[in-house]
Amino acid sequence: MRFNRKISTLISVVIVAMSTGVSSCALATEKAAGEQPNILFILADDLGYNDVGFNGSKDISTPNLDALAKQGVTFDAAYVAHPFCGPSRAAIMTGRYPHKIGAQFNLPEDNSNVGVSADETFIAQTMKNAGYFTGAMGKWHLGEAPQYHPNKHGFDEFYGFLGGGHNYFPEEFEKAYNKRVAQGLTNINMYLTPLEHNGKEVRETEYITDGLSREAVTFVDKATAKQQPFFLYLAYNAPHVPLQAKEDDLAQFRHIKDKKRRTYAAMVYAVDRGVGRIVSQLKANGQYENTLIVFMSDNGGKLGQGANNYPLKEGKGSVQEGGFRTPMLMHWPKHIKAGNRFAHPVLALDLYPTFAAIGGASLPEGKILDGKNIWPSLMANVAPHENEFIYVLRHRDGYSDAAARRNQYKAVKNHNQNWKLFNVAQDISEENDISAKHPAILRDMVSSMESWSWNNQQPKWFHRSDEGARWRLKAMPRFDKTFQVDDHGTK
Amino acid sequence: MRFNRKISTLISVVIVAMSTGVSSCALATEKAAGEQPNILFILADDLGYNDVGFNGSKDISTPNLDALAKQGVTFDAAYVAHPFCGPSRAAIMTGRYPHKIGAQFNLPEDNSNVGVSADETFIAQTMKNAGYFTGAMGKWHLGEAPQYHPNKHGFDEFYGFLGGGHNYFPEEFEKAYNKRVAQGLTNINMYLTPLEHNGKEVRETEYITDGLSREAVTFVDKATAKQQPFFLYLAYNAPHVPLQAKEDDLAQFRHIKDKKRRTYAAMVYAVDRGVGRIVSQLKANGQYENTLIVFMSDNGGKLGQGANNYPLKEGKGSVQEGGFRTPMLMHWPKHIKAGNRFAHPVLALDLYPTFAAIGGASLPEGKILDGKNIWPSLMANVAPHENEFIYVLRHRDGYSDAAARRNQYKAVKNHNQNWKLFNVAQDISEENDISAKHPAILRDMVSSMESWSWNNQQPKWFHRSDEGARWRLKAMPRFDKTFQVDDHGTK
Amino acid sequence: MRFNRKISTLISVVIVAMSTGVSSCALATEKAAGEQPNILFILADDLGYNDVGFNGSKDISTPNLDALAKQGVTFDAAYVAHPFCGPSRAAIMTGRYPHKIGAQFNLPEDNSNVGVSADETFIAQTMKNAGYFTGAMGKWHLGEAPQYHPNKHGFDEFYGFLGGGHNYFPEEFEKAYNKRVAQGLTNINMYLTPLEHNGKEVRETEYITDGLSREAVTFVDKATAKQQPFFLYLAYNAPHVPLQAKEDDLAQFRHIKDKKRRTYAAMVYAVDRGVGRIVSQLKANGQYENTLIVFMSDNGGKLGQGANNYPLKEGKGSVQEGGFRTPMLMHWPKHIKAGNRFAHPVLALDLYPTFAAIGGASLPEGKILDGKNIWPSLMANVAPHENEFIYVLRHRDGYSDAAARRNQYKAVKNHNQNWKLFNVAQDISEENDISAKHPAILRDMVSSMESWSWNNQQPKWFHRSDEGARWRLKAMPRFDKTFQVDDHGTK
Repeated sequence: MRFNRKISTLISVVIVAMSTGVSSCALATEKAAGEQPNILFILADDLGYNDVGFNGSKDISTPNLDALAKQGVTFDAAYVAHPFCGPSRAAIMTGRYPHKIGAQFNLPEDNSNVGVSADETFIAQTMKNAGYFTGAMGKWHLGEAPQYHPNKHGFDEFYGFLGGGHNYFPEEFEKAYNKRVAQGLTNINMYLTPLEHNGKEVRETEYITDGLSREAVTFVDKATAKQQPFFLYLAYNAPHVPLQAKEDDLAQFRHIKDKKRRTYAAMVYAVDRGVGRIVSQLKANGQYENTLIVFMSDNGGKLGQGANNYPLKEGKGSVQEGGFRTPMLMHWPKHIKAGNRFAHPVLALDLYPTFAAIGGASLPEGKILDGKNIWPSLMANVAPHENEFIYVLRHRDGYSDAAARRNQYKAVKNHNQNWKLFNVAQDISEENDISAKHPAILRDMVSSMESWSWNNQQPKWFHRSDEGARWRLKAMPRFDKTFQVDDHGTK
Repeated sequence: MRFNRKISTLISVVIVAMSTGVSSCALATEKAAGEQPNILFILADDLGYNDVGFNGSKDISTPNLDALAKQGVTFDAAYVAHPFCGPSRAAIMTGRYPHKIGAQFNLPEDNSNVGVSADETFIAQTMKNAGYFTGAMGKWHLGEAPQYHPNKHGFDEFYGFLGGGHNYFPEEFEKAYNKRVAQGLTNINMYLTPLEHNGKEVRETEYITDGLSREAVTFVDKATAKQQPFFLYLAYNAPHVPLQAKEDDLAQFRHIKDKKRRTYAAMVYAVDRGVGRIVSQLKANGQYENTLIVFMSDNGGKLGQGANNYPLKEGKGSVQEGGFRTPMLMHWPKHIKAGNRFAHPVLALDLYPTFAAIGGASLPEGKILDGKNIWPSLMANVAPHENEFIYVLRHRDGYSDAAARRNQYKAVKNHNQNWKLFNVAQDISEENDISAKHPAILRDMVSSMESWSWNNQQPKWFHRSDEGARWRLKAMPRFDKTFQVDDHGTK
Repeated sequence: MRFNRKISTLISVVIVAMSTGVSSCALATEKAAGEQPNILFILADDLGYNDVGFNGSKDISTPNLDALAKQGVTFDAAYVAHPFCGPSRAAIMTGRYPHKIGAQFNLPEDNSNVGVSADETFIAQTMKNAGYFTGAMGKWHLGEAPQYHPNKHGFDEFYGFLGGGHNYFPEEFEKAYNKRVAQGLTNINMYLTPLEHNGKEVRETEYITDGLSREAVTFVDKATAKQQPFFLYLAYNAPHVPLQAKEDDLAQFRHIKDKKRRTYAAMVYAVDRGVGRIVSQLKANGQYENTLIVFMSDNGGKLGQGANNYPLKEGKGSVQEGGFRTPMLMHWPKHIKAGNRFAHPVLALDLYPTFAAIGGASLPEGKILDGKNIWPSLMANVAPHENEFIYVLRHRDGYSDAAARRNQYKAVKNHNQNWKLFNVAQDISEENDISAKHPAILRDMVSSMESWSWNNQQPKWFHRSDEGARWRLKAMPRFDKTFQVDDHGTK
């Protein structure tokens, strides 16, 4: 029906959840039997599109991830909601575009008292409400003050660090931290602070990636002992800077000449080793068949820091594909057929409603979600977001980079240049601007994104103070300039 | 008592409603008997002060409205809360000055995702809670996204369109709409989209004004069948642009030379015909005696588009009388004596509390209303707003037009000129500035309006993106300039 | 434990109250017996550090206050949360830094419709919930519109005036007020309006300070008659301008040559006389032993208006010690030993949690408090805020004055100059900048204050409209400049 089609494209994929919960047709039988699957969501940090074996990497080996990919489904076009860590993670946890909740910037460094509030119920809380044992391991980056702690957001267990990254070697960061404490300082860089377990300082002794893998295994064991389904958010900080790898892992990549790339590869390899360990433990515990494993990155690989996003254009921070399209796999022996690639676009924003549906969780009343449950589309191998919009928007100093994808088309405004139009289905590297050929489509897409932008919230924080000052001085977001198309045509 | 007088003028007519409801002495007997009257509120769009027979129009005939006026009461000084459609309607629906709820601009075009939230309980919801069958027919203009739909705001029935206006001829807009859909466009101008009934697309076949009158009759019939009192908000988009009239109606106005005026007159005539049809149906259904009919416009007539606001100064968009004083009548055989004119100022903001009182409705706890129940004053023929302030405020590009009326005096700051003072009781055309004669009164009025302005909200949207950007660049609202009186005197 | 130490200093003294209430070990026995003490909190207005006998004044005699000090404890380093009246009082009433609730400016003059909302439960409401009979006498200055009235904030009784100050002589202000009313004016200066009792105008006939003392005595009698514990907030407007004293009181200070100082001294003397009267009445009613009396000022003395803050630097409005360190005493025969001086810093922000603890009151769920219950530390004579931060921040025209104290150190940025560091434990007059000696400590303190600033709210009002306009034009708060330390060092 025409009218419905129009509305559905306009409001993109906004789902306003009612208290009745989300139902997943494909899984109705299992849920009826009360058999909630485990969900293991593994998030890498700044991992490039081409930096895992299952996406074609020539120089980095990721045997354990590749095995999961081979037995599961690989996604060609998985998009996160923002090309930076903090906003991307806020989106995954809340199911909202970060711009809709004022979280479109990374949190200020260090020890800030701002964060993503519990007004937006996190996926962990939703799963916990449905009976899940919930855990987060690794990097948080959604608020360092007590009220923003993972334990306040529905995670029964948290092991890791609250900032946006961390030094990988305990012997290094412990020494540096103690030195500053001895000087009487208190506002110490978050990359150096001790790790914590549920708010209590712990003394980590392993290379951080290995420590997190170890804790994930412990968590899986606990869940098994409890006979509770688990939801585990395993957020490795690797291969985010600082580039620090173990000698043994570096030894695997002697063939890589570039030192940064070599270190980066070794860091990814350590992540892959951790994945292997956890998979082994799932098997040992008899949970392997009944666990949905999802793996992706929080944003594109950072250029100049060892990553490779080929064949995508640009990298972390960009609204070109290299900024926010990431490697992704799903693995679930019970339900997912082995060896498929899924070419249709899917969103990190879809994870919240999809996990909730799979776990039989009810959504909080009035909860708005910007993605959708993709499970039925995935099972049917159809596009979950046909005719719908996928947006990416990064604010810079006095202007914004913006892009909107709908079906094969992607409209892009980058580096303060004019809007361009690409057919990303055929032109994944965004090389051929076809805006002159389809001016009406470009204008239509841009004006739709402008409509989308109207209820964006002002940022609740900025990464740096001067960024906030310039935001105000330049009367940002200046969407009048962002959504201006050169040729004011026939609309 | 001095103190009370002071407070009452200061806070103007703010009523904070308690859960005990509003009581109307004059109607206590009726309500005790459980006999709630029907309320039919008809709102014209951009109708000029002098464009109905009952206000003295020489060239436009409105026989049905005139008959209601003759048997009812006509208001000489009925003021809406803003000289533009969107903010004026937001005020009527919520009972709040639009500046108090961030709704002081028209919504952005088209298909925006912003709107007036249900945090401010709409009059429809209040009436519905009191047992009314509620309907809205016509133009909405308070939000196009699902959460702002009339059905989410207490209207059982909605028939019409969500935008700020519409093409009047189905054969025209249907064709234009289909063409754009065929081009693959989705963000299509709201003046062209199909009409809807309770969220479902319908295929309207009549001239829009006639279609809305037809649906109003249907609604009245439904209510009669249900034996429920009804609250009907009939919001004709006529005679708002585009100026489009039926040939038959145009034929009635061959005496008008000016083509725009002729078309405008024919559009008003079609509205009048609709009013006649509904009145006939009320009589046929035995509801005529027990229905309060209120008719007014959402703001003044638009100069250059066929309207005539004589003897008022300026028109739509202005803080002079022509911008926000509109024709108004009330008709209710049971209670209103025929043939009266009411000279005291009344407000569109008074409709909410007056309707609630007449219908015996309780107000939501904590609900703030900026108007008051005028029924007792109307029955007693006394000024409902003696010593109280009536404000109008329109933000422009870097400055604001503002005016405040108290009793006979009106302080006006227009077109960025100095504040002037008029005695609008004697000088309805605002020709004689008496500020030099009463500087203390002017300063007192302006400083009262400044106090009123302090808890205005920042706009939640702008009509155009560049308007919002300039708002921020120019540090609007710049009330320091708005409320500056030249001669800083003795206060 | 290192980690806890770090967190505690970072978050300063933020206490998130749970519904379980605050417990005070020292008082457990009393509360168990259900014997809640009376609390009499007396707040002077703009009283200088050196303007009471118990702080060493040579020319002003305050025999009644000195007697309380002698039998109680005197605080050397009592800090209010802001060097201006309105924000300081907002902090005392809510337990929050005014910057955290948008109350960092004085309210606009006059008759504004903004104020401190009840979203932040006031201490009076908390005490009332615990069974206290609550009263406020004197200056309110937290909102003049009905919803901000003391009676809406938990005060059973209010006698006084709502604005930020008042003329002291009824014969003067009554005449001036009546003259303006006769002119038809309504927006009359709040210094001239009649006083009120629970929202009803009253005709005060005494010198205001004496009138407030009289009403306090009446309140104490009422509480005694009710056999209820009382919480009385006695907010004298003296010795705030206008400088107006009674002839009899002036006669006591013929030795003071300077007319302003003489008048100021007489005004303080009248306050002291009132304190004496209330103490007498407490004794007469048998409540003396069981009443905690706290006396302090809302900010430092105003230079040029008769005050003396020696040995502190600067005065009202400053982030130097003279701006926000005030005289303070506590007196409670039952619990406080006579004659002590308490050298450790305490905060006006501590009053809320301390009063709540002493009165056995539960805190509202989720209530955040920026201070802490200092009772246990007071009893043990240890520093309640060891290693914690005390902040003061005043926004000016395009920049901010800021200071942070931690233990003996105070970092100060004043008059748009570079940050300085003082050892205020040894150098109370802030004369020796030691920033060059301790650059790492200075940087650490400033960066902590920057972290603290991130969740400050935008001001909900400004004292004057042009102040708000300039705030926006200059993209305030410009914390990027405020928290810039010259030497960007080793952090």
